[in-house]
Amino acid sequence: MIRTSFIGSGNLAWHLAPALDNVGYPVREVYSQNPKHAAALVGRLYEAHVNISLDFSASTSTIFIISVSDDVLQEVAQKIILPEDAIVVHTSGSQPLSVLDDTGSQNMGVFYPLQTFSKAKKVSFKDVPIFVESESSNVEKVLMKMAKAISNNVKRINSEERKALHVAAVFASNFSNHMLTIAREIAKQNDLDFNVLKPLIAETLNKSLELGPEKSQTGPAVRGDFEILERHMEFLKESPELAEIYRIVSQHIIDSSDQ
Amino acid sequence: MIRTSFIGSGNLAWHLAPALDNVGYPVREVYSQNPKHAAALVGRLYEAHVNISLDFSASTSTIFIISVSDDVLQEVAQKIILPEDAIVVHTSGSQPLSVLDDTGSQNMGVFYPLQTFSKAKKVSFKDVPIFVESESSNVEKVLMKMAKAISNNVKRINSEERKALHVAAVFASNFSNHMLTIAREIAKQNDLDFNVLKPLIAETLNKSLELGPEKSQTGPAVRGDFEILERHMEFLKESPELAEIYRIVSQHIIDSSDQ
Repeated sequence: MIRTSFIGSGNLAWHLAPALDNVGYPVREVYSQNPKHAAALVGRLYEAHVNISLDFSASTSTIFIISVSDDVLQEVAQKIILPEDAIVVHTSGSQPLSVLDDTGSQNMGVFYPLQTFSKAKKVSFKDVPIFVESESSNVEKVLMKMAKAISNNVKRINSEERKALHVAAVFASNFSNHMLTIAREIAKQNDLDFNVLKPLIAETLNKSLELGPEKSQTGPAVRGDFEILERHMEFLKESPELAEIYRIVSQHIIDSSDQ
Repeated sequence: MIRTSFIGSGNLAWHLAPALDNVGYPVREVYSQNPKHAAALVGRLYEAHVNISLDFSASTSTIFIISVSDDVLQEVAQKIILPEDAIVVHTSGSQPLSVLDDTGSQNMGVFYPLQTFSKAKKVSFKDVPIFVESESSNVEKVLMKMAKAISNNVKRINSEERKALHVAAVFASNFSNHMLTIAREIAKQNDLDFNVLKPLIAETLNKSLELGPEKSQTGPAVRGDFEILERHMEFLKESPELAEIYRIVSQHIIDSSDQ
């Protein structure tokens, strides 16, 4: 039986630790900078306890999963003390494998689930793509097996590909969401109810996922309707940042549809 | 019984005409620049026929629905010949009511369903918000009743509000979709399968519609992770337009989250 330990108790660990715990990868220890957060996650697990420091030298776990925010990952890698022969992975989309060099481990890997997580919302890991990376074929084998125990969608990846995937994910998820935030802002400023836009948003995105986004593009830019584009930029002139986003995204839609 | 006629047989008319035909607003005539397209729409209706010109002087319809692309709307308004006392409406989100002045009708209005339509995809009008505008309270009453016959979500609106709504809809629908197109492009250029991003996209948008987009924002920009932002822009340096979109949208996310 392969035991695991979690460093970090954020949104990803919150869902990943119980998922592994339930399929034969029991979680033994949870560390968090805030021990209360670690204790909360421990409460979701069968036999785990809180590790109050980054010293895991006495741990019986085989796999140590560092699931912390990117900006403290390096520091955690420097401070963590692992038992001999431990496998150590991080779960970040954007950090190279080499950020774990400071752990001193010879068995490093990346275990990257491509999904957005929040504590309040249940996630079915079966559908979450998991990307595995390691320079050691042994470690890769162990991680692939662990990934397949929770997901039907597991792939090998290297650091370069993972970076491309992360940039694509920023556009697909973060930026598309921000377009909705801007729409909400414009609606609000004009005393309109954002809710009236929801059927349109849902239908657009359903269509996009079904037919492909390039085939689902509608609106004045893809029609080349410059009169409307100008009228809209005029409408946005009090918010120069929005007018500039409107201009540059419209231009890119026009350029893309010319190809 | 109020009879209707359609000018235009595009994606919106394709769904709107049968919806009205089914609830006691029988469609009598369909005109399209391409008579074959008009005939195809007539095939979806009970007792309609093709009108081969814009001369409707002999029509027994009360409501004439001009559902053509924005760039020919003015021309259609100039050329159309209506029976006396006819009500004439357009269905555009972005054109003012006054674009119909040239019809010579005293009974003008706008009947704007806020949704994206394609011929291949069935739409349930019950959930489609419909916005009604008219300067005549009589016409408004007739149009509100017709809208309520097909939708549970009907609202009065004026031309200024409708423009704001349309700009918001461009961000919410056209631009969010284009972010997916860019993600697909980046994935493709790096030999990655766009399909792996779909669970993330679906979850992001579901969360956004449920909790509100401003509460669902994730990613390096909202975390203020400038190291990642710089690394991503470096990654995009061969596509200056994408790097610029990345920069300007990230900046706006940072500015919005400061507020």
